[in-house]
Amino acid sequence: MAGISARAQKTQFSPIRKLKPLADQAIKAGKKIYNLNIGQPDIPTPKAFMEGVKNAPPVLAYGPSQGLDEAVRALANYYERKNILLKNDEIIITTGGSEAISFALMAVCDAGDQVLVPEPFYTNYNSYATMANVEILPIATSPEEGFALPSKTEIESRITSRTKAILFCSPGNPTGAVYSRKEKEMLGEIAKKHDLYLISDEVYREFVYDGLKHTSVMDLPGLEEHAILVDSISKRLSACGARIGALTSKNREVMKATLKFAQARLCPPTLGQLGLIRFIQSPTYQHEIDTMIQKFESRRNVLFEEMQKIKGVFCRKPRGAFYLMPKLPVDDAEKFCAWLLTDFDLDGDTLLLSAAADFYQTKGKGRDEVRIAYVLNEDALKRSMIILGEALKAYAKKN
Amino acid sequence: MAGISARAQKTQFSPIRKLKPLADQAIKAGKKIYNLNIGQPDIPTPKAFMEGVKNAPPVLAYGPSQGLDEAVRALANYYERKNILLKNDEIIITTGGSEAISFALMAVCDAGDQVLVPEPFYTNYNSYATMANVEILPIATSPEEGFALPSKTEIESRITSRTKAILFCSPGNPTGAVYSRKEKEMLGEIAKKHDLYLISDEVYREFVYDGLKHTSVMDLPGLEEHAILVDSISKRLSACGARIGALTSKNREVMKATLKFAQARLCPPTLGQLGLIRFIQSPTYQHEIDTMIQKFESRRNVLFEEMQKIKGVFCRKPRGAFYLMPKLPVDDAEKFCAWLLTDFDLDGDTLLLSAAADFYQTKGKGRDEVRIAYVLNEDALKRSMIILGEALKAYAKKN
Repeated sequence: MAGISARAQKTQFSPIRKLKPLADQAIKAGKKIYNLNIGQPDIPTPKAFMEGVKNAPPVLAYGPSQGLDEAVRALANYYERKNILLKNDEIIITTGGSEAISFALMAVCDAGDQVLVPEPFYTNYNSYATMANVEILPIATSPEEGFALPSKTEIESRITSRTKAILFCSPGNPTGAVYSRKEKEMLGEIAKKHDLYLISDEVYREFVYDGLKHTSVMDLPGLEEHAILVDSISKRLSACGARIGALTSKNREVMKATLKFAQARLCPPTLGQLGLIRFIQSPTYQHEIDTMIQKFESRRNVLFEEMQKIKGVFCRKPRGAFYLMPKLPVDDAEKFCAWLLTDFDLDGDTLLLSAAADFYQTKGKGRDEVRIAYVLNEDALKRSMIILGEALKAYAKKN
Repeated sequence: MAGISARAQKTQFSPIRKLKPLADQAIKAGKKIYNLNIGQPDIPTPKAFMEGVKNAPPVLAYGPSQGLDEAVRALANYYERKNILLKNDEIIITTGGSEAISFALMAVCDAGDQVLVPEPFYTNYNSYATMANVEILPIATSPEEGFALPSKTEIESRITSRTKAILFCSPGNPTGAVYSRKEKEMLGEIAKKHDLYLISDEVYREFVYDGLKHTSVMDLPGLEEHAILVDSISKRLSACGARIGALTSKNREVMKATLKFAQARLCPPTLGQLGLIRFIQSPTYQHEIDTMIQKFESRRNVLFEEMQKIKGVFCRKPRGAFYLMPKLPVDDAEKFCAWLLTDFDLDGDTLLLSAAADFYQTKGKGRDEVRIAYVLNEDALKRSMIILGEALKAYAKKN
């Protein structure tokens, strides 16, 4: 047979799902598992959202490729309240943030082009890039520095003639790091100097703590032609299954390219857009979001505090998203994560974590780190840290 | 600035939407427009579908990348009733048929590879191919032959060392042509001999008339490794906005590649899947589909009969989908379609049609053809043909 394409062979299965078979076995064996491995919030989807969905018209027809007019206006209104002023044709609603990132990469890169990405990074970036024949060049960051961006010189040293963009996620998945305004301005200077796009994944834009203010790439003056914001309602509305995201830019060529791609796939899902419209129209929407963010902040506090009590665990306090990426006193976190499922339990309870090596492109990095998604309630998080502490002790004894 | 990618520049805006500004102006000028240009059925989405949607769980979470287990089983059950036996891992639910086609192209083609497609063809194939850096080579068919496939020799003459697949749509958009079992077997022979995939777009699989039986690519013995079926519930359930499709194949490598792509975008829309599950569980679902198909058959009869009365219009009777692609007695159908909106009305009424040249890759072909989507009721179709007849008379006088 003709076989499959090189790009299909090169694309990896999602590493986050590697441990699922072991987790299934552990459940079968009667263990209770605390799922801290996937960024799936446990928060109920807002009632207003589902009200909007239920009021679908009798014919669930194709909507406009750009998104329903009302949904585009709803998003423009949302951004306006964040002091980001966007015209309606500067917003295209996408099928999740995933599609927004794919569209952005395809709009600015041809086969063989490169994109710089601070690592560790969201593993699916690799797949979007591979599918589009684009190469990712990692920019190193470290847990010791709280995954802050390195110096301008260091970033610039990675740029080649084929580099088209810097793609970054702040507040960050998988690190929880929030880049400061200064860091983003530095990226802006690089973008201007080297003619690069800044593709800013702001899926976690609302998830900032300690009174910090999130700086959007759309907030940086003079970068209008460089900035591409990719966004999603998945986390903010706890509506991951709705598959509604957005790509916004003031660069007309980028918006034209994206609209062409959007027309090819006809339209984003109508039902999720109806939910979004109704939710944004509801007078309490910002309050609902704020309440949720407070809940996550308090979870982070609990989780971080409890983690400090465990000997040998190192983590700078992350300021956003809902992830922590600690270093553990283990040689190989991947083995440890598997062992948690196969060989350990504390009174029947154990943990499902993500080994951090999967978030690094550079081989050998992050081997003693894990990603913890704090998508469970505070009691569950406390219990999880007790389990982790005991597990590490048992693991040290075993080895 | 870095500018945008060559692939973005090469991707075209959807030609079907070209006339929209003129249509909007015509509406503003008080004209009533019969929309026959887009394959958007007017049939209400089944009640059971919307019931399923309304019963969404409290947290609209990510579903499995392959699709919800129940939705996969529902589809397997649907195919089984069509005598297509598929294991659960031979089905991946996609975000519309659009994504299924993109995934299929990326699974089997690398940059620079080619796919043969009988022309005229669905214009979005061009975009999926361009986005994936794949080249489409057209296989010529003609209105005189009812858009039937040409000879085996002619098709084989198009194959090069870079050809990876034949992509085809039967029942066909934009032609309404239904390939016979013999024609599909011929494609099968070619696929085997030249090691090609057959990517069969069966979005209109239920839409066959005159007692004809649709032959699925999955029905062809010995082609298990070659056959990739791409499908969608959009037309069959009148749920175009739900964005639910599927890719199925018995080729394990293709399914593995597709699952990797599917994992990258996390999951298909959950709400549409909930609708699909409920609809397939409803005892009357096949009856509901059959009733709708009868309605379209009767529309085709009315439209075709009325069209025969118009002097100078030529069209073989199509046996499927909901399109007719007649030759009109005009030099340039694109100009005629625009003129219908800008300069013509019959007692205030006019038509929005699609010029067929857009469905041909070969320059100069189809210039006197239009595509008519019969997505309106019979009275509207009758009235449309009266308008078309009068318009052609007025247009002939004018020129």
